[in-house]
Amino acid sequence: MTEYNDFQDTHPSSRKVYVEGTRGVRVPMREIKLTGGEPPLRVYDTSGPQGIDVRQGLPALRQDWILGREDVEEVERVIQPDWGKTPETLKRKTYRGTKCVTQLHYARKGEITPEMEFIAIRENVEPEFVRKEVAEGRAIIPNNINHPESEPMIIGRNFHVKVNANIGNSAVTSSIEEEVEKLRWATLWGADTVMDLSTGSDIHETREWIIRNSSVPIGTVPIYQALEKVNGVPEKLTWEIFRDTLIEQAEQGVDYFTIHAGVLLPYIHLTAKRVTGIVSRGGSIMAKWCLAHHEENFLYTNFEEICQIMAQYDIAFSLGDGLRPGSIADANDAAQFAELRTQGELNKIAWKHDVQVMNEGPGHIPMHLIKENMDKQLEWCGEAPFYTLGPLTTDIAPGYDHITSAIGAAMIGWYGTAMLCYVTPKEHLGLPNRDDVKAGLIAYKIAAHAADVAKGHPGAQEWDDALSKARFEFRWEDQFNLALDPVTAREYHDETLPAHGAKVAHFCSMCGPKFCSMKISQEIRDMDEAKAGMEEMSRKFKEAGSEIYLEEAGE
Amino acid sequence: MTEYNDFQDTHPSSRKVYVEGTRGVRVPMREIKLTGGEPPLRVYDTSGPQGIDVRQGLPALRQDWILGREDVEEVERVIQPDWGKTPETLKRKTYRGTKCVTQLHYARKGEITPEMEFIAIRENVEPEFVRKEVAEGRAIIPNNINHPESEPMIIGRNFHVKVNANIGNSAVTSSIEEEVEKLRWATLWGADTVMDLSTGSDIHETREWIIRNSSVPIGTVPIYQALEKVNGVPEKLTWEIFRDTLIEQAEQGVDYFTIHAGVLLPYIHLTAKRVTGIVSRGGSIMAKWCLAHHEENFLYTNFEEICQIMAQYDIAFSLGDGLRPGSIADANDAAQFAELRTQGELNKIAWKHDVQVMNEGPGHIPMHLIKENMDKQLEWCGEAPFYTLGPLTTDIAPGYDHITSAIGAAMIGWYGTAMLCYVTPKEHLGLPNRDDVKAGLIAYKIAAHAADVAKGHPGAQEWDDALSKARFEFRWEDQFNLALDPVTAREYHDETLPAHGAKVAHFCSMCGPKFCSMKISQEIRDMDEAKAGMEEMSRKFKEAGSEIYLEEAGE
Repeated sequence: MTEYNDFQDTHPSSRKVYVEGTRGVRVPMREIKLTGGEPPLRVYDTSGPQGIDVRQGLPALRQDWILGREDVEEVERVIQPDWGKTPETLKRKTYRGTKCVTQLHYARKGEITPEMEFIAIRENVEPEFVRKEVAEGRAIIPNNINHPESEPMIIGRNFHVKVNANIGNSAVTSSIEEEVEKLRWATLWGADTVMDLSTGSDIHETREWIIRNSSVPIGTVPIYQALEKVNGVPEKLTWEIFRDTLIEQAEQGVDYFTIHAGVLLPYIHLTAKRVTGIVSRGGSIMAKWCLAHHEENFLYTNFEEICQIMAQYDIAFSLGDGLRPGSIADANDAAQFAELRTQGELNKIAWKHDVQVMNEGPGHIPMHLIKENMDKQLEWCGEAPFYTLGPLTTDIAPGYDHITSAIGAAMIGWYGTAMLCYVTPKEHLGLPNRDDVKAGLIAYKIAAHAADVAKGHPGAQEWDDALSKARFEFRWEDQFNLALDPVTAREYHDETLPAHGAKVAHFCSMCGPKFCSMKISQEIRDMDEAKAGMEEMSRKFKEAGSEIYLEEAGE
Repeated sequence: MTEYNDFQDTHPSSRKVYVEGTRGVRVPMREIKLTGGEPPLRVYDTSGPQGIDVRQGLPALRQDWILGREDVEEVERVIQPDWGKTPETLKRKTYRGTKCVTQLHYARKGEITPEMEFIAIRENVEPEFVRKEVAEGRAIIPNNINHPESEPMIIGRNFHVKVNANIGNSAVTSSIEEEVEKLRWATLWGADTVMDLSTGSDIHETREWIIRNSSVPIGTVPIYQALEKVNGVPEKLTWEIFRDTLIEQAEQGVDYFTIHAGVLLPYIHLTAKRVTGIVSRGGSIMAKWCLAHHEENFLYTNFEEICQIMAQYDIAFSLGDGLRPGSIADANDAAQFAELRTQGELNKIAWKHDVQVMNEGPGHIPMHLIKENMDKQLEWCGEAPFYTLGPLTTDIAPGYDHITSAIGAAMIGWYGTAMLCYVTPKEHLGLPNRDDVKAGLIAYKIAAHAADVAKGHPGAQEWDDALSKARFEFRWEDQFNLALDPVTAREYHDETLPAHGAKVAHFCSMCGPKFCSMKISQEIRDMDEAKAGMEEMSRKFKEAGSEIYLEEAGE
């Protein structure tokens, strides 16, 4: 076990430790030091290697495992990128499978890969359990062979609920280095995967920098870049342009693709009477293409070929929900569920090709309609992992949609959703900055953890118990350090009681010393223990023949 | 209908309107102006009369109704307060019922009071429905005859879910005027009731100022003040001191009392093995008293006399949950449920005296255990309104407990809880300032509204629909104005796209013009309509005998 101190600023009193397995497997965890005499608490860690120059990129953690399987070949990139300002140090060799190289393929053959072993340690389960969940399609391990920098993670409802953070520049804003910085910031606050939704210029180069610097799987929506290639006119999209874009991104190392293959021509008119029509960018692009050509969605008609491409790199499908509802009024309607059924059909085709797949879900759903989404997805989609955006449980709070949606996310996570796509306070209003990314992530780590606790996920509640014990024992420093956001917890305490003494006081600002229920409760416990001791003495005394101690009534 | 413009700063494009009923009933609503050709949206309003000097106090809205019933007498206050800096203008006459003067009493006699009529208009239901819900104990109208300034409101699961905000100074901080300002701020952001939890000096005077300036019912925990009177030593509390405190606060006009009469001596040892013991201040005070004296809780043994006092002023019980869990580990345990059963027993006694009653609930509860709380409360407590603190669904996020608890609050609201006690970001860490009060309220208005929508409360979803329609039609100004917090929504939009032009643009910063799904969706709708028109022409053409237009396959 090696130790690093990576968290000085964001997580004081935490350090990174690596738990070692066989075959070079070293699994990062964050260890929180405690002062109450108990061992430190180890929690899941997504922050990745720290302090590395973005112009160097991260070490290729999985490279030996990938090459060791002897089923990949080095290739020239089909699309020679415009390297722009990308330094030589970020340019890596590119590989393609000589046959199917997916974790699903290995799992079905009964093989436990180093990736699975890594995940088993990370999730505190048996490696065979990981293999079985992957083999049966209930979980996916998104890790493109061209993204060896990533630390293996799993998305499935029998593991920790995961959180995705979206980043990406748009036509309007931000530099490449800003986006890489946003990526690092997101993983520091617990993002399990990151989707790069860039649509601006430098889209290819930005992605290259992001992938080389990402310790978490990267997802994209390839249709965005394809649309850039036809100057933003959906009608001009072709299968060939899209296919080349898939290969281009596959060679860069994208780990999962959102593909809106379930937006079928006959479903589009089902959205005509909606309050908010089609709100998925990818969905609306494909809908427009279908209507303009009066042809079936080319992502659907070429789905088998897409599977063949993805199998060569081990890219997972995140089947898009292009017809998801964009308002409470449109929740659980015919258009949405028509597409979900088609997602289920497409899952089977992906599985036929040994390609890993998960299904994207909504969106805007009132609480009473959330469970139906999960139930139908489980039934129609053969238990593939579900990956939802929120859902937002009301439309009336723009500026606070991290909260409107954390409510729905927690619930659907409890019901069985495997990964939650975060929503930031800027949703519907603008592009998230650093603070928004953090606010979105904290809200979603809360939702995911609340779901883990409600599902009874082994070990999840330990964290709550450690914090509550620290709280009851007035170990203020431990309480801050155990918080999801230690810095903010400490700042809030300082605002009311800035003195150092308050950090060791056996009361707090809310009640003051006289009214502190925790303090009184401690005293009650002491009285109770004293009384128990007295009763014990009394019993012994009586056994010895005397009756000086009297039993008290009523207790 | 009279109109006022009260919301220039916080709710631009809103104005206050009063809907008039009979008997002088004038019900305030907030009207949000819209620009899409639709009528303005009217929403529930708690902000009360605006712009009134805190040294004058609010007009006595209900005074004529109270005196008109001819069942009260003017009295000298039993406890002559230390008026301190209180101006003459805030000193009002004090009344006491000559018999039972509760809304429950009138309701059971079949009488529809002006208060009930006011509520019927406010909630958009029939007055008889209000009467029946109150008569059957499913709803309460907390309005002390000595608080005629309050606008009648109802707490019950067949009405809008309500939100309570806690304010109050502690030994450490804040002036009287600051607390009054916090009260006004809270009602401006939607607090339906406010609890004054002050424990510092000037406790009586602070409360006097708050009540005279409050348009919403005020709740207190009288044991806090009783404890001040015995210098903070729980053992020294007596029934007489407590009873005098009740009368003192009753004469001031407190609308509901939290009373921890369910913390019984035999239940206390059930908390001994808990992770966080007893976390309710009132609960821990009573537990300590019981243990110290080895006697049953004097609030329980004197409960009938408490009922008699409360019946004379129409004060509602908020039966405290002194043994609520303070951590996930302690949720739904024997101590908690023992007290809940006793609450049910006490409800029956209150009802025997025609005294209105609701039950307080937890606390810290993981999602999968929330529903059990609601189910047991309904069963054991005879459907009296439930009033919960959150619940928090995880312990690991101090600094964000408005979010951990909004999740639980939304769920339990949907399940049937009538009022949600807010939690601010400072919970467990410090005293809330203005920003925290607002953050807590917005989170809880979200939870309450999400619950209303999920329950299918008539009219609730109109608000969501109006906002979503504005969003789809790129009416940015309407979208901001319809937001729970219009100021923040606008600020966030300005951050990315400050130009005025962006407020009328048919796209936004998130996607830019090329990628705007809403824009593409509008175009699809136009194409669809054009096509429908074409099909119509085609049909007519064919009916006329021609076949030039061909039907297209697949659509």
